[in-house]
Amino acid sequence: MNVNQMNIKKDMKIIDIIEEFSSSGVLGAGKVGRSCELLADMISKDDMKVFMSVAGPLVPGGLRNIIANMIKNKEIDLLITSGANITHDLLESFGGSHYREYGFDDEQLNEAGMGRIGDIYTKSEDFEVFEKEIIHIFDKISKSLSQNSNKNPNIASNNSSNVISIKDLLYEIGLLIDDDDSILKLAAENNIPIFAPGIIDSMFGLQLWMFTQENNLILDAIADMHDLSDIVFESEAVGAILLGGGLPKHYTLASNLLKGGVDAAIQITMDRSETGSLSGTPLEEAKSWSKAKCGSNLVSVVGDVTVIFPLIYAGVLDKINND
Amino acid sequence: MNVNQMNIKKDMKIIDIIEEFSSSGVLGAGKVGRSCELLADMISKDDMKVFMSVAGPLVPGGLRNIIANMIKNKEIDLLITSGANITHDLLESFGGSHYREYGFDDEQLNEAGMGRIGDIYTKSEDFEVFEKEIIHIFDKISKSLSQNSNKNPNIASNNSSNVISIKDLLYEIGLLIDDDDSILKLAAENNIPIFAPGIIDSMFGLQLWMFTQENNLILDAIADMHDLSDIVFESEAVGAILLGGGLPKHYTLASNLLKGGVDAAIQITMDRSETGSLSGTPLEEAKSWSKAKCGSNLVSVVGDVTVIFPLIYAGVLDKINND
Amino acid sequence: MNVNQMNIKKDMKIIDIIEEFSSSGVLGAGKVGRSCELLADMISKDDMKVFMSVAGPLVPGGLRNIIANMIKNKEIDLLITSGANITHDLLESFGGSHYREYGFDDEQLNEAGMGRIGDIYTKSEDFEVFEKEIIHIFDKISKSLSQNSNKNPNIASNNSSNVISIKDLLYEIGLLIDDDDSILKLAAENNIPIFAPGIIDSMFGLQLWMFTQENNLILDAIADMHDLSDIVFESEAVGAILLGGGLPKHYTLASNLLKGGVDAAIQITMDRSETGSLSGTPLEEAKSWSKAKCGSNLVSVVGDVTVIFPLIYAGVLDKINND
Amino acid sequence: MNVNQMNIKKDMKIIDIIEEFSSSGVLGAGKVGRSCELLADMISKDDMKVFMSVAGPLVPGGLRNIIANMIKNKEIDLLITSGANITHDLLESFGGSHYREYGFDDEQLNEAGMGRIGDIYTKSEDFEVFEKEIIHIFDKISKSLSQNSNKNPNIASNNSSNVISIKDLLYEIGLLIDDDDSILKLAAENNIPIFAPGIIDSMFGLQLWMFTQENNLILDAIADMHDLSDIVFESEAVGAILLGGGLPKHYTLASNLLKGGVDAAIQITMDRSETGSLSGTPLEEAKSWSKAKCGSNLVSVVGDVTVIFPLIYAGVLDKINND
Repeated sequence: MNVNQMNIKKDMKIIDIIEEFSSSGVLGAGKVGRSCELLADMISKDDMKVFMSVAGPLVPGGLRNIIANMIKNKEIDLLITSGANITHDLLESFGGSHYREYGFDDEQLNEAGMGRIGDIYTKSEDFEVFEKEIIHIFDKISKSLSQNSNKNPNIASNNSSNVISIKDLLYEIGLLIDDDDSILKLAAENNIPIFAPGIIDSMFGLQLWMFTQENNLILDAIADMHDLSDIVFESEAVGAILLGGGLPKHYTLASNLLKGGVDAAIQITMDRSETGSLSGTPLEEAKSWSKAKCGSNLVSVVGDVTVIFPLIYAGVLDKINND
Repeated sequence: MNVNQMNIKKDMKIIDIIEEFSSSGVLGAGKVGRSCELLADMISKDDMKVFMSVAGPLVPGGLRNIIANMIKNKEIDLLITSGANITHDLLESFGGSHYREYGFDDEQLNEAGMGRIGDIYTKSEDFEVFEKEIIHIFDKISKSLSQNSNKNPNIASNNSSNVISIKDLLYEIGLLIDDDDSILKLAAENNIPIFAPGIIDSMFGLQLWMFTQENNLILDAIADMHDLSDIVFESEAVGAILLGGGLPKHYTLASNLLKGGVDAAIQITMDRSETGSLSGTPLEEAKSWSKAKCGSNLVSVVGDVTVIFPLIYAGVLDKINND
Repeated sequence: MNVNQMNIKKDMKIIDIIEEFSSSGVLGAGKVGRSCELLADMISKDDMKVFMSVAGPLVPGGLRNIIANMIKNKEIDLLITSGANITHDLLESFGGSHYREYGFDDEQLNEAGMGRIGDIYTKSEDFEVFEKEIIHIFDKISKSLSQNSNKNPNIASNNSSNVISIKDLLYEIGLLIDDDDSILKLAAENNIPIFAPGIIDSMFGLQLWMFTQENNLILDAIADMHDLSDIVFESEAVGAILLGGGLPKHYTLASNLLKGGVDAAIQITMDRSETGSLSGTPLEEAKSWSKAKCGSNLVSVVGDVTVIFPLIYAGVLDKINND
Repeated sequence: MNVNQMNIKKDMKIIDIIEEFSSSGVLGAGKVGRSCELLADMISKDDMKVFMSVAGPLVPGGLRNIIANMIKNKEIDLLITSGANITHDLLESFGGSHYREYGFDDEQLNEAGMGRIGDIYTKSEDFEVFEKEIIHIFDKISKSLSQNSNKNPNIASNNSSNVISIKDLLYEIGLLIDDDDSILKLAAENNIPIFAPGIIDSMFGLQLWMFTQENNLILDAIADMHDLSDIVFESEAVGAILLGGGLPKHYTLASNLLKGGVDAAIQITMDRSETGSLSGTPLEEAKSWSKAKCGSNLVSVVGDVTVIFPLIYAGVLDKINND
């Protein structure tokens, strides 16, 4: 098969450039073309559940609405992410924002009350609002737990009334958020579960810990596996979208080990493979572990998620609506 | 200050080459020289607690004894790691091993019952032993919990007798391990706490979940923060050794936010800074968040941990014993 | 300034997604947005000469037509590239092609007469045609040199009639190529000089050497600097497009040192900065050397050129035609 | 075969840690162990010529003496490098130096007359001395060329008396240098040829061009291939040490294509493989092109050359002297 030379013209649509990438078919362009094809396929298949993992600062980095829309459109069936992305989703729901162009002198930023994430900045005043609001929400949920735990089927049944799973906590929070762009709210409304196995390691987790210093609440780290495994077992097929690596990537793949692995997956990351860390390893390795099925369709793209994923997703929207 | 040209001769000691690196002082060599100096300093200071985070496949990748020795020598005061490294430490304690030179055909490896981590391999028969043994240990701990929770000060006091924190679970396991090379055993014996906030995301976590399908055990995701924050508040100063990125790196730095940040840190990773992910960001960024103190001594080395850390650590052993 | 969350919809144009990137403004997306803006500006300015360097397998990798069009449209004023890209441009002009999907077993590929460049493949039969044709062209030029060197102003005047500069050799070849897609032909026709300081290091160079074993031809490595420096001195301002690193990047920047550095530049590469190699260093460093002017506008994008450059260039075409 | 856990103790020698790396055998440590073994083998074999390529700022970065010693000890048979490394070797011979710890504000550095290479700095006053001295040397060589070209067998025989090959120019310069640490001087004295196909692209090249504005000198870009190919054809076997990528790496491998490829090679680089650029591609790919023999022994290490190569080389010195 030949490598076709790409043609770039004025007034191109996203779908046109994706087709040029596919027509070339090699290096990064080829991988973007193939992952777009595969993702359109994954989303279109009625019998395939789509799991999405989101690691790295993708909510502060401009992908919040994309993730929210994928939930609203039911293009994904579950989301696995970090405590940080949940924190930053809530930060925006509570009126905060993310900022840019404040330079790279971290000691000056510290004095100015700004936290830096690459070239993204946060303000401590936004975190103060976040803290006040989230504690208020924890309080509501905690009280409701004590009162209603036996009646609410969304709360993991337990011998103690003050135990909640991470997924259920995020669901309850989602119901209490007043922001139509919120990932948590949209997920709750659309019954898309959010898993965040490392949630304690975040500003959200820190506030939760502070809340538990004076309130009796236990976050069960194991409970979500019951629900997640049920979803895996009930799925005829699973496709995975892996944005970044880390715990979210591993948890997504590992949960599918229960049924022989995912049937299809795309991953986008800049992490390297040579260190052996799961974050950077090409998807093929997952086959050895039965985290991806032998014969499954897997595309690993090396690139910056904030560029590559919006591009692929725009291409996918065109493909799935034109079929 | 000049860049001195390095001199390499026959019969050099590790400490000699480290001095050549320091004398050159630039690029990777300069960073290795400075991190060796800084780590020796961190370990030598009586009033500085040393936190170590370990991400990536460092136990399968040959660093198990190094980590174990650092615990035995009390060169570190606490360890933060992934469920995977705990799983692989136990796998070796239960008689399993890690293997090499089985090629890169992941479908063939799958058929042969081998899991691949870069160029490291595991055997499913070793995991079968692991599963049997760890379930046996969970059973012992679970029974002991129900019986003795009120008497044992190491078990988080709670209103339910079946709730345990991750750190306490790992401590109890450590006491039950019959292997003098075990990180978990040595940590328990030497009262070096192990934190693993994402532990559920591992083969260890999978077995724990399976155990809880028929047994009543709750792993409290928040509880460890009480102990970790106590350690942070009680420390006059904190130095951090960050091997790889991920959740362990973030948790280590974030816990120090409670007291204005670490006083010193070295990190070794191959992850890039441009994506904004914490894994690859140079340590300076932590100052903006008060996760590292303004004015703290921070060295970020870009390299493969399996080469760079043994080298630095060997240099440190010479430095701290020669002072 | 706020980070705006990107909105991705069906039927987007390239220019729409570039605007979303710019509106977010951070991480990779922000850099792509800014480099698109800057490149449109560079190309639009009448008094700015645009230098483009092309390293890495961009002709085999699908960018041949893009480069050719930029020459045809006079969007660039000179091209600096590797011997490999010249070889592969000619290979296609002589009827050869680039191929894909032949696997990664290099010993098998060798037996099958295929050369591998990542996931791009070449066939030895195409190289055989290349060799025959290029020797034929060398012969024509060599004969013409001996006969006409004093009459042709494009041939470096020298005391020997068999001396030619690299740029002039490529110009003469361009005139003899019968392929309207050829970079060399279009460059010759449009008087866009091509510089290739490392040309000897390529299949083209190898054939040139073989030709000189029986023919008297001297390729002057210094001569091009006379022409290149003239262009630099005659330019009111210079903008640089640096695709990949290597010799082409360095030569482009270094030639501008003669007049205090470039006024604007974008670079796209995956190479890292930590090793100190020029290939991966952010453009800012060029200011210290007066290879970029203090105050110049510089954008360094980390990414795969085969994805990022077509995307940016498509955005530029929309921007410069809509102004 | 098992992955052995590494043991790190006080007072270790380099050779001890290399053995620990080999005993672990996986990830980066395994590659360092294997490349040390292979390099000792390459250097020990009487019938194997050793070619070394040096790209990136390795002379400014502290490896000048190491390279010089390898030449003095005749551990390498030829050197292929960049104009930059030749420039910086001469800069030190002429009394200049490389500096550190001047910060990262490139506009300030420019004003202070300092050029930055990562965290290495140069001073313009050192370059002024370099310029004066090198022009003086060019003048001597140019005059000697006109007078003696027919008598000196080291000068490429040509119909014009003012033509010299790059290798011969570097040889003549080496003879005129008064510095026992000089790579150029030691190479000339020991008849180790230096090839630098891209030499024009450097401060050295810039001075050479300026010299030719008033002097008649032609640097033949093709001529070296005659000598290089002779060496390749006369070698029973070839081993390659590839430090960094770029033109030097490619030229080293490509020259061996003439005889079916190298028999053994190690490469150390941080460049990635995914872009298809030769700099980052693992050595295996060279087999498809017959630049490395099928069945040849090849080790690709991902790491910073300034750390990894001194370490490997120190290990090699111990191995070859203990056999």
